[in-house]
Order: sequence, then C-alpha cells, then structure tokens
Amino acid sequence: MTDIAKLDPTDPLALAEALIKCPSVTPQEGGALALVADVLKDLGFVSQRLTFADENTPDVENLFSRLGTRGPTLCFAGHTDVVPPGDTSRWTRDPFAAEVADGRLYGRGAVDMKGAVACFIAATARTVAAHGAPKGSIAFLLTGDEEGPAINGTRKVLAWMKELGEEIDHCLVGEPTNVAALGDTIKIGRRGSLSGTIEIVGRQGHVAYPERAANPCRAMVELLARLMHERLDDGNRHFQPSNLEITSIDVGNPTHNIIPPRAQASFNIRFNDRHTPKSLMALIGRLVDERVDGTRFRAKVTYEPNPGDSFLTTAGGFVDAMREAVKGATGHEPELTTGGGTSDARFIKDHCPVLEFGLVGDTMHQIDENVPVADLETLTRIYQRLIQGYFARLGG
Amino acid sequence: MTDIAKLDPTDPLALAEALIKCPSVTPQEGGALALVADVLKDLGFVSQRLTFADENTPDVENLFSRLGTRGPTLCFAGHTDVVPPGDTSRWTRDPFAAEVADGRLYGRGAVDMKGAVACFIAATARTVAAHGAPKGSIAFLLTGDEEGPAINGTRKVLAWMKELGEEIDHCLVGEPTNVAALGDTIKIGRRGSLSGTIEIVGRQGHVAYPERAANPCRAMVELLARLMHERLDDGNRHFQPSNLEITSIDVGNPTHNIIPPRAQASFNIRFNDRHTPKSLMALIGRLVDERVDGTRFRAKVTYEPNPGDSFLTTAGGFVDAMREAVKGATGHEPELTTGGGTSDARFIKDHCPVLEFGLVGDTMHQIDENVPVADLETLTRIYQRLIQGYFARLGG
Ligand SMILES: [Zn+2]
Ligand SMILES: [Zn+2]
Repeated sequence: MTDIAKLDPTDPLALAEALIKCPSVTPQEGGALALVADVLKDLGFVSQRLTFADENTPDVENLFSRLGTRGPTLCFAGHTDVVPPGDTSRWTRDPFAAEVADGRLYGRGAVDMKGAVACFIAATARTVAAHGAPKGSIAFLLTGDEEGPAINGTRKVLAWMKELGEEIDHCLVGEPTNVAALGDTIKIGRRGSLSGTIEIVGRQGHVAYPERAANPCRAMVELLARLMHERLDDGNRHFQPSNLEITSIDVGNPTHNIIPPRAQASFNIRFNDRHTPKSLMALIGRLVDERVDGTRFRAKVTYEPNPGDSFLTTAGGFVDAMREAVKGATGHEPELTTGGGTSDARFIKDHCPVLEFGLVGDTMHQIDENVPVADLETLTRIYQRLIQGYFARLGG
Repeated sequence: MTDIAKLDPTDPLALAEALIKCPSVTPQEGGALALVADVLKDLGFVSQRLTFADENTPDVENLFSRLGTRGPTLCFAGHTDVVPPGDTSRWTRDPFAAEVADGRLYGRGAVDMKGAVACFIAATARTVAAHGAPKGSIAFLLTGDEEGPAINGTRKVLAWMKELGEEIDHCLVGEPTNVAALGDTIKIGRRGSLSGTIEIVGRQGHVAYPERAANPCRAMVELLARLMHERLDDGNRHFQPSNLEITSIDVGNPTHNIIPPRAQASFNIRFNDRHTPKSLMALIGRLVDERVDGTRFRAKVTYEPNPGDSFLTTAGGFVDAMREAVKGATGHEPELTTGGGTSDARFIKDHCPVLEFGLVGDTMHQIDENVPVADLETLTRIYQRLIQGYFARLGG
C-alpha cells in the first residue's frame, strides 16, 4: 500500500488496480476500505469507519463518507468485498495482481464491484476538480459484507445513519447491471424473494400394502405440480411475471420396499409488485391446505427469515438524470428493468429512492473476471454526468 | 438344549417353545436348526446341514431333510431365523423365554415362523405315528437367511438340491399368511417386485434467472406425476392391480437461491402376471423418454438387481388338498390370494408349485409377538390333513 499516496483520484484504472490488489475476500477488509477512505479524504470527504459484529457472524468493516453538509445528498453505494477466487490454478492470471492485457483489467472484483467503486471516486474527483463542491452532498456507503451473509453490512450502516440523522436523498448502487454493453440497462427496481420449505407427513408402511400407508411422496408430487402450474401473475410494464422455483425435494429413504413417513421440499419465489411476502404466504397456505385437508396427510410450511419485498423506484428526476447520463455518455437508450437477483438495494429502498447501474456483469464471480479498460473510463463519464444532472435538477 | 431328548415331536407348543428359546436372530443359527434336525432324525428323516458363504455377507446355516426316497415329495419350507427383538424394554415378556400367558405363547418368532415350523414337525410326527411312512416323501427345507439378505439361504439350498437331484414336487411355505383368523387365507401366488432409481440431470443456475437454467425438480415432479397416474392394469381374478410407489425423492440442495443440477427418485412396482420386469422397464423407459426427449434434461433409470417375477400356482390337486385341509380343520373356506409382500416362495416357484399357509401374521416383527396356543394345535391339524390329502390324491 506504499503507493496509495501517488494514486490519481481521477484515474479509474489506477484506482481499480489498487483496489483489486487489496485481498478483500469477504469478510476480510483487506485494506480496500482504508484505501477508499484515504483517497476520499483528499477530496474533502469526512469518513466513518463502522465495524459491526454479530454473535454468529464475523466482524465486518464498513465505510460511510460524506462531502458537503446540506441536501440533497446523492449517495453512491456498493461493496469492496469480493467472492473467493475459487481454483486459482484455473485463472490465467493472478486474481489479485490486477494485470492489464489486451485492453482488459483482470482480477477478482474487476466488475463486481471494485471497478465501479473506482469509477464512483474518479467521477466525484473530476466533478469536484472541474466545478467545485456540488449544490448538495455526495456520500459513499461502502460495505464489506455484500458477498457474505449481509448481516453486518449495508443494513446496519443504514440503521446507524438513521440513528445519527445521516440523511441521504437518492442512492445509486454500482452493482454490475448491464447485460451485453455498458449502457444497456438501468435497474429501477427488484423483484422480491421469498423462500420456504414444505414438510408433508404421511404414514410409513410397506410398499406391498400401500393402502395401509399414506405415501408423502405422492402428496408432495401432486402439491409441487400444483404449485409449479400456479400462474402467479402476468407481470406488468415494469416487472416480469412472478416465478416459483422448486429448489430441493428431500425424502432420504434408502429402502426400496418402504413407504417413507415424510417428505420435504424447498422453493423460492421471485415476485413483482403485485405480491407481498404476506400475500404469497397466504396463497401457498391455501394451495397446501387444498391438497391435504381431509386427507391422511399433514403439511407444514416454514419460511426463511427476512423475505425481501419487491420495489420500484419511480422518482422521476432521479431516474431521468440517470437515463440521460447513460444516453449522453454512451448514446444508448437504456432499458429500465427489474429483473435478476437481489442486491443491497433491497435494504436501501426503505430509506430513499434507489437505482442500480454498474459495469457489464458477464464475468462476475467467475474465473478470469475482467473489465474492459475502456468501460472504466465510460462508466466514470456516466457517473460524472449523473452527478452534474442530479444537482442541476435537484440541487439546492 | 439338555431337554431336547425329552421333546414330544407331536406337541407343537413344546416344539415352538424350544425353538423360541434358541436365540436365532438372523443370521445366527442359535441352535434352532440343530434342534429340528435332532427331532426329525428320530422320525426317520435324513438331514443335510448346509452352510453357505458369500464374500459380502455372513455365513448362514440351512437344513434339508427328507423322509422317504420315492416321489411324490411334499416339502415344507420355512426359516428358523428371526428379526431382532428391537427394544426389549418395550416387551412385556422376555422375547426368548417362550412364556405362555392367557392362552398365548409369547416370543420372537412365535408366528414368523418358529410356530409354523413346530406345526410342520408335529403334523409329520402325528401322521407317521398314525399311518406309517407316506406313499412318497416328506421333505423340510429350512433356512437361516430369510429375514436377512436372503443370499445364502433358500436360493442356494435349491441350487444345491438341483445339482444333487434332490427333487421336490410340491412345496408349502409356512409364512404367516392369515389375516384375521387361522384359515382365512391361502397364498397361491405373489406379485413381482421391481425397484429402480431415476436420475434427471438439468442445468444448475440462480433462481432469479430460471431461463438460463433447467430445473431438474420441475422435470422430476412432472415425470413422477406421470408415473403415479399411469394405470398399469386393472388386476384380474387372481391378482390385484399392479401398483407403483415412489419411495424417495432426493435433491440435497441446501441453498434457497440455487436451482440444483440434478434430482433423483426411487420407486418400487408390485406387479401381477400381466407384466414382467422386462415389460415394466420398457414402459418406464418410454414414459421417461417422453418426458425428456427434446428437452434440456437428460434422464437415466437404473434398476436394483434380481427383480422378482410374479407367480401363480395353478396345480389343481395341490391347491385342492390345501384348501380342503383348511376347510376340514377350521370350517373356513379360505380365500386364495396373491397380495402382500414377497417370501422365499419367489425362489421355490422356479422349482415346483408352491403355496403359502401359516399362522395369523398380526404380531409378526412386532413387540410382544405371540400366537394363540390353540392356533398351534389347529395349524398342526391343518398340516396333518394336508399330508393325508396330498398323498391320497398324488401319492404313488
Ligand atoms: Zn456485487
Ligand atoms: Zn417369515
């Protein structure tokens, strides 16, 4: 870390290289947040290093930084932790060496999302250098627990902010959102997620006497077929149709001539804004009851804690600023989508409108993760335009 | 065993008590076959003690005894091994003490099937005492591996008999066949049994992007629903309809947001004489192919070795002799059935016509297994009548 002092805060490639060299495999901080805090300090940010602990999970470091004291506050949110590199012998390059080859920067976190964090910083540095402090505040909310259990990360930073009155007005999460080319996709919402497990208890017996038993495999197959064919909705303008996937079915009976006493199955529902966890639990409960009421079977459904609600960001000025920044820097008319998995935006949406826009995600979490160097420059320009457009529209 | 010499070979209760006191928990011989051989020797039988071994299973002792040298030969078949007593603290009596209380003989094997073996012997002894040697031969085929893997038992005794030209013409297996009262049921056949496992391989992925994955749980549920609803046949005069039971479904995916790569399920089919293992394998193969051909799924079905064929004993004279013995001794017109599980009759039917008739099976394999003492006497009389009727009809 001896050359941190020499980092050019307006150079996203140099920043991304320095961040990739920090071995911040979740939940390790690896020097990454310290590096960001140092660079932001030179730009005038005030930073808080926040370590959160939990009895069942490792301590995690987080960072909240702010430039300016008045509103509105545009917050860049993301993470510096990365998933493990996996089998490093399958990488063609050291995953923590940040090598550039053929116009691409290689390394774990290149797209998810040290590259985007570098662009946040560079865009901010360039804006401040060109135009001085913005008509409002810029904040950074960076966590070291996005790739881990997400218990001691963004959620706890937000709770801390709320307690201290650290308000933010709009938030951009820099997760890799683009599908094929930088600029093709802005995430304006996310589907919700609900996971549950169904247990069906029947009556054990011998396969030669099925009439004396109640085979829970039969009841489970029929119930799962019913759940699979339930059309949850048709989607709408912003959301694709809600979808249920069976993720496991488990009986564990090794004996071919025995009808087992119980069966269980797990499922996950990704749902749009036509449902809530509560409405879905009621629907599942009804379908399960229909199957087992009046039979010799009993069924129980349990849900994973903390299901995620769906959300949709409709704050016009913010969405327009983001869309125009993308169009201005890339020429693309970005698609506004709500597909794909969850992110820490699921926590942030309870505090302020949140959008997601980052790099192209095709190599994230994979062997030889990499980002075109040109994309780092383009994303920096997009974020620069966002800052300018945001404060032009909403600044005080 | 000091009082073996004093055993009255015509007394089924004394014989059953002595056998229960032999701790012949499978595969232990426990002195039971030695006891039978000793008693039969006094009746004029010539016995062969046959020990069979296999590299993966324990050595097992068996007994083949014959009285007479000419045909026809009526063989009594059964076993002296018993299933373990289980939690002996739950028994109200020592499972190996052979206590009589309230008119019932208690002990492991009382009905399955030391009681019936005792009745075989007593019926033979009474017949010989009353009428002298039969117009043919009486044989005993007793194994110590019926409750175990059934590898070193009846099947190997039959192979040994075939090799040595030890012919038998008809065989009665003394397994507990009666349902509610002694005399209600003669088993004249058995359904076949075929067990298999289906594996479906799809494509792993994230639940948020089901279109990029191929969820094998979905394909498995649809396939199993199809198999469950396939009507194999309607049964016929002798057999109930063939039936498929799913015995396990296993995916083993602990992660709620991952679509797993594979799923497997096991099934067992109990089938009548309208099917063979081969015809059923062809049917299953066709149904599986229909489901996966042209999809992104691959499926493979593997079968357990040595599926059992169904069989039906139609040897009129033998069936009539058995039916009339039951009716004469009990007044019941026995039902001729083919239901229930498999027995060593599945091996014997390849050598000669085989029937099954024994005690009432309600307490077999259970805590406090017991037999009414009166049933031992009645079963002895039934077997006596069978011997007399058999040789009257078929004897030379
Ligand atoms: Zn990420
Ligand atoms: Zn038995």
